[in-house]
Amino acid sequence: MGQSVVDFPVAVVLPAGGCGERTGLGTPKQFCSLLRRPLISYTIDTFHRVSWIETIVVVVAKESLDLMLHIAQKFHHTKVIVVEGGSTRHRSIFKGLQAFCARAGAPPLPRPEVVIIHDAVRPFVEEELLLQLTLAAREQGASGATRPLVSTVIAATSEGYLDHSLERAKYRASEMPQGFLYDIIYQAYQRCSEFDFEFGTECLHLALRYSGTNARLLNGPPTLWKVTYKRDLAAAESIIKDTLSMSACIISGALGETAELASRLQENLAAHSMTVDVFPCVKGKNELLMKTRNFIQISETAASLCETREMVKIFEEASHALLYPVVIVWVHLSMSEEPCPTEKGAELTTIMDISTTFRKTNILLYGIQVIHSKVPELWERSVERLSQITAALVRDRNPALTGQLLQA
Amino acid sequence: MGQSVVDFPVAVVLPAGGCGERTGLGTPKQFCSLLRRPLISYTIDTFHRVSWIETIVVVVAKESLDLMLHIAQKFHHTKVIVVEGGSTRHRSIFKGLQAFCARAGAPPLPRPEVVIIHDAVRPFVEEELLLQLTLAAREQGASGATRPLVSTVIAATSEGYLDHSLERAKYRASEMPQGFLYDIIYQAYQRCSEFDFEFGTECLHLALRYSGTNARLLNGPPTLWKVTYKRDLAAAESIIKDTLSMSACIISGALGETAELASRLQENLAAHSMTVDVFPCVKGKNELLMKTRNFIQISETAASLCETREMVKIFEEASHALLYPVVIVWVHLSMSEEPCPTEKGAELTTIMDISTTFRKTNILLYGIQVIHSKVPELWERSVERLSQITAALVRDRNPALTGQLLQA
Ligand SMILES: [Mg+2]
Ligand SMILES: [Mg+2]
Repeated sequence: MGQSVVDFPVAVVLPAGGCGERTGLGTPKQFCSLLRRPLISYTIDTFHRVSWIETIVVVVAKESLDLMLHIAQKFHHTKVIVVEGGSTRHRSIFKGLQAFCARAGAPPLPRPEVVIIHDAVRPFVEEELLLQLTLAAREQGASGATRPLVSTVIAATSEGYLDHSLERAKYRASEMPQGFLYDIIYQAYQRCSEFDFEFGTECLHLALRYSGTNARLLNGPPTLWKVTYKRDLAAAESIIKDTLSMSACIISGALGETAELASRLQENLAAHSMTVDVFPCVKGKNELLMKTRNFIQISETAASLCETREMVKIFEEASHALLYPVVIVWVHLSMSEEPCPTEKGAELTTIMDISTTFRKTNILLYGIQVIHSKVPELWERSVERLSQITAALVRDRNPALTGQLLQA
Repeated sequence: MGQSVVDFPVAVVLPAGGCGERTGLGTPKQFCSLLRRPLISYTIDTFHRVSWIETIVVVVAKESLDLMLHIAQKFHHTKVIVVEGGSTRHRSIFKGLQAFCARAGAPPLPRPEVVIIHDAVRPFVEEELLLQLTLAAREQGASGATRPLVSTVIAATSEGYLDHSLERAKYRASEMPQGFLYDIIYQAYQRCSEFDFEFGTECLHLALRYSGTNARLLNGPPTLWKVTYKRDLAAAESIIKDTLSMSACIISGALGETAELASRLQENLAAHSMTVDVFPCVKGKNELLMKTRNFIQISETAASLCETREMVKIFEEASHALLYPVVIVWVHLSMSEEPCPTEKGAELTTIMDISTTFRKTNILLYGIQVIHSKVPELWERSVERLSQITAALVRDRNPALTGQLLQA
């Protein structure tokens, strides 16, 4: 999408120098981890995925340079250039823009026609909005995403009393991302005052004041919100987890009993808003494997753990779990009502061992034993419990519980 | 707190008629469940706990009357009066205020001097702020909580271009709660226009316009934010879970080995920001039990599950888990390196059985087995894993995993 329409160079400047005092977490919030990956890596990835974006300039404080370079390398963010920022947000953005003119010890980057400026702490941006903003910026010189006001805005007297409230319909909240013709925003920063560099908040305002450009305003979705407080990190994690747990793949084997259980599980997980496909076997289906983040493997013997290992080998070779953890729920359907406890002990040891290895590459393995009771009520209860536990494990992606053999 | 200062009648009006379209969840957001309790019950409880607040009038849509009465009864919200709302937020608030004049089929409630108006979907309000608002309302006639603006506010031209941006420092976001002298806000509603009833957003504005009262503005904390989107429910749940998992009580028995493990666990959980107290036994310490929401019971035999049952009986009698789930992590320290698998199977059956019963009264029981290896590295690994699993179980409070016997 966008590739044929955007036939001119586009780059991103991502100021990430904030110190995150409002989260109360010590770590600047752009470096806080969600599912063991820093928030800023999610933000970078939303731009990285867009084919017509060529360069992403991330501007960080001097003390975060090494960390940021490490993150870019670890998560294969190959379009990223890291530059050192200034003492305020506007100074950092200007430094990011200057990377396209000259860089210390490196040739200047090819100058883009349009530059998108964003916040490191707004990790959810859709390509469609970026496309609209980019095209609007090219046409108008500047563009910005806005949202309706959430609260009424009021003016206070200097003594702390209500003076008047603004008519809500006439105003909007200005959000990020914003798009600019490179020359327009560069000129604005060249001309703006020390006061603007120190206290200014709005790039759109600078473009208006110093380049005479009235930005085109577009309606952004609610997901553009800014991760500000600790609770926002939980909200962001929940959005990521919701997205990751929308679908799963059951590998059921060819046998009657496991296939039957697979079909029951598929039905029950639909009630947890999970779309589940069932396959007797996934050997050779590498394309399917690479599209899937949740696997439920049902079998009657522990021997199937060999297939688990083979699958994981494929994931590891393809770095499938580099950006998001992959979950494998291994389900042992025991046809005997009194399964051998020693055997169960051996299984647990195996699962715990291999799960420790898998975790190193972000693959989370959990085991569940189900006993196929001949008493219908007991069997129903087990199927219900299996569904509940599976849904919870897939949704929560909790590393502390890997390697366990749970009982359904 | 506040009891001696607030020697005049104070009531709350809580409009809860919203349909929650923005969460995309079907259920109006005030009725969405967090830890199996509707959001509105959390909001009600923040007022219920305040000794000097006498009555909480909850205003709901006609179709939610039964649900709301059921919630008030189930969670013992004895100060709550439920009344039917109008077609807009302002009509609902006015109906709430009118409950103090006349009620269909019931005598009017005693008229308060100050009335606090709040949103059902802002569940975190501290007594200190309520006190300040109440006193300011009594003195000034009206008072409101405000917050700094999160985004720059801009005015758009009718064609969708930037006209100008507001100077952020001069404006504030108006939040809830707000406080009013009853007569001031009642008069404002009596005098206001149909347009205000239909499209107005601000009670403070009505008090200014129709009663000539400039509200006193107070700075509110960030926790006053409004649960608007689905992600906000996750954020709210995370705040509740953080608060619930701040502390725990270890019951370790008098024996050397379990006491030693207790002390290791206490130390490790501190790294998870959990303050843990250790007691050899909690028999007779009912006051301690009622202050605690997380219990870690360590023992060398399954016989200790009898003590668990006794403890739970006390919780049930006192409705200790009525508002928040209570977690019990039962840890079996096995001194044999090769524990009897049949015994483990029997333990699992017992734990699963009793956990099913406990869950009915919101008490979540999880089991963990730890083998006391004589190999120091293995023992260290087990203690580490025990700490990780315990912290995860206490933090997540996941009902799907109750009754399991995990392996540390
Ligand atoms: Mg800006
Ligand atoms: Mg209002």
